[in-house]
Amino acid sequence: MEPAIKYRLIKKEKHTGARLGEIVTPHGTFKTPMFMPVGTQASVKTMAPEDLKEMGAGIILSNTYHLWLRPGEDIVEKAGGLHKFMNWDRGVLTDSGGFQVFSLAKLRDISEEGVAFKSHLNGEKLFLSPEKAIHVENALGADIMMSFDECPPFFESYDYVKKSVERTSRWAERGLIAHQNPATQGLFGIVQGAGFEDLRRQSARDLVGMDFPGYSIGGLSVGESKGEMNRVLDFTTPMLPEDKPRYLMGVGSPDALIDGVIRGVDMFDCVLPTRIARNGTTMTSQGRLVVKNAKYSEDFRPLDPKCDCYVCKNYTRAYIRHLIKADETFGIHLTSYHNLYFLINLMHQVQDAIEQDNLLEFREAFFEEYGYNENNGRNF
Amino acid sequence: MEPAIKYRLIKKEKHTGARLGEIVTPHGTFKTPMFMPVGTQASVKTMAPEDLKEMGAGIILSNTYHLWLRPGEDIVEKAGGLHKFMNWDRGVLTDSGGFQVFSLAKLRDISEEGVAFKSHLNGEKLFLSPEKAIHVENALGADIMMSFDECPPFFESYDYVKKSVERTSRWAERGLIAHQNPATQGLFGIVQGAGFEDLRRQSARDLVGMDFPGYSIGGLSVGESKGEMNRVLDFTTPMLPEDKPRYLMGVGSPDALIDGVIRGVDMFDCVLPTRIARNGTTMTSQGRLVVKNAKYSEDFRPLDPKCDCYVCKNYTRAYIRHLIKADETFGIHLTSYHNLYFLINLMHQVQDAIEQDNLLEFREAFFEEYGYNENNGRNF
Repeated sequence: MEPAIKYRLIKKEKHTGARLGEIVTPHGTFKTPMFMPVGTQASVKTMAPEDLKEMGAGIILSNTYHLWLRPGEDIVEKAGGLHKFMNWDRGVLTDSGGFQVFSLAKLRDISEEGVAFKSHLNGEKLFLSPEKAIHVENALGADIMMSFDECPPFFESYDYVKKSVERTSRWAERGLIAHQNPATQGLFGIVQGAGFEDLRRQSARDLVGMDFPGYSIGGLSVGESKGEMNRVLDFTTPMLPEDKPRYLMGVGSPDALIDGVIRGVDMFDCVLPTRIARNGTTMTSQGRLVVKNAKYSEDFRPLDPKCDCYVCKNYTRAYIRHLIKADETFGIHLTSYHNLYFLINLMHQVQDAIEQDNLLEFREAFFEEYGYNENNGRNF
Repeated sequence: MEPAIKYRLIKKEKHTGARLGEIVTPHGTFKTPMFMPVGTQASVKTMAPEDLKEMGAGIILSNTYHLWLRPGEDIVEKAGGLHKFMNWDRGVLTDSGGFQVFSLAKLRDISEEGVAFKSHLNGEKLFLSPEKAIHVENALGADIMMSFDECPPFFESYDYVKKSVERTSRWAERGLIAHQNPATQGLFGIVQGAGFEDLRRQSARDLVGMDFPGYSIGGLSVGESKGEMNRVLDFTTPMLPEDKPRYLMGVGSPDALIDGVIRGVDMFDCVLPTRIARNGTTMTSQGRLVVKNAKYSEDFRPLDPKCDCYVCKNYTRAYIRHLIKADETFGIHLTSYHNLYFLINLMHQVQDAIEQDNLLEFREAFFEEYGYNENNGRNF
């Protein structure tokens, strides 16, 4: 059987080993490394599918936990799956709900069977198991699915993380068995293990032994420092097979994207660009720009004079500031669009740098201009 | 001097006298009768300019009162005027602020000179006179401007309305003198007079004597019945010159649009389509459809199966309901888009009916299908 998801390694950067590649899905092919916009509830906040295509998104993420609770996976399935439901004919990736169960839900109770918890919407008692999560993901019909995992806190004890990693491996195996559509949906395993090298190794070995079509790296960007994250990536990505894609979950700051690529990561997602956009904060080549600040009230330049996105070609800081101050959601649409474009375009630049074997020079120039090299370096 | 705004009467419908025409502005020409989307704060809520063009909007309205208070007309002027500020190269119409002063502001005090009142945003004491309103409108730079008027309640006493109408005429004359850009901005007079035929006649005679390039009909759709409004239109439009456009302010329900056209009106505007859209209510050929209702949760038909708009071609009731229930603003974007298209497209159908001299048949069929002919006829 032909797998649903195929990865092709095109080239490794000479100095870092960063990977240029492409991922083939049932809904199109996209180049890696790349960034995925997040559409938690089957909508990338304020964006039309046409906007996402215009900015070059090849795949978007949606959340199993949220869609299971609302509108319910049965409704999405009856609609013909997530692609049809949302009017999106490119790739979709769904997480397993595990992360949300551990971050949003209340009073959870973890057992070998799964996790009992209460809905964050209405307090209803619910139970999620590997089989149930995969059942929901099969109904949603995304091109790439995630295994149901436990995402323990980064600074949890070694003993706890070891037990958790072993259970996550058993859950991954159960999910693989439960998966009904391997020809049309590719299921990824999620490597856990917090900051412990031997536990990451154990997790990776377990999962690679199950031969998933791709591997996610979970349990990072959950409060640890950027240095800690890079240290974990340094020893984790070499444990993963070269011929499968690697996805670093929940990471979206420009520095972390570049540093992740340098360590062999291919895929990223994060709500950061759209979340800060709703607060009037934008990413530019010169660093953060909080466009709602008063100093931009008569600034008729684009958000980022070096950016060629729809927003920067057509709107001024003064107009966007006005919209946000006046609670006009079109303002948030514009900042969201720009931020998503910024990260997607950053990854295109990173692809070019891999092609040209000058990724470290690119990193240095980008960090310098963005302000990461300053003493009070921007924290995203 | 060539006037900024020209109206050309193309044809009158045989049975009703309804007018098919076109209005030429410095930013394009559009056919009448037509409906204008409202962009109160320099943005039609949730809409990009590209969306408005796609749905066929030839001109949009923006509010002098709101833009004067925020961001300030000086900022819009420095941006190059409203068109550049908003990235909109078709027509723009600004009201004078009069209506908002009387509906939103607090503790107003009317004198011959103008109106003293407090800002609805921060309570600041402000004063608006005909000269000030025109100064702000000149700075905003819309293609069509409104005179500063008083909009008295419909059921105010005859004596009060008479004094108000006479003052509004004097204010119109002062505005005409204050107007700095008659070659690029067309200033309309606003006929007031509540429900009193002789006061409407007095107002129309005063204003027509000043030879405005267009005439608005104000003080309607402020709480009186549809029957009252039509009665006033019956005697008011014949008082206006045939070679100038007539604009019925603040009217946007489908029945009132059709009945206004039958009585000789060319232009309409209203926040109704976008306001009800934000509440999950849509206009369809079969009448109102409250898409957020539970009964649409598994309804995979478009909002209106007879509609060919972007929303109805691409999204289902079930998806739009999900978005609105989940507080995703893209849902409100979709209902807003559909409702605006519905009214713009309704006016295209009305134009065709004038062309074919069957406007009364069109009205009857539309009212029947929409549900206006039922005993509990929809109230919009």
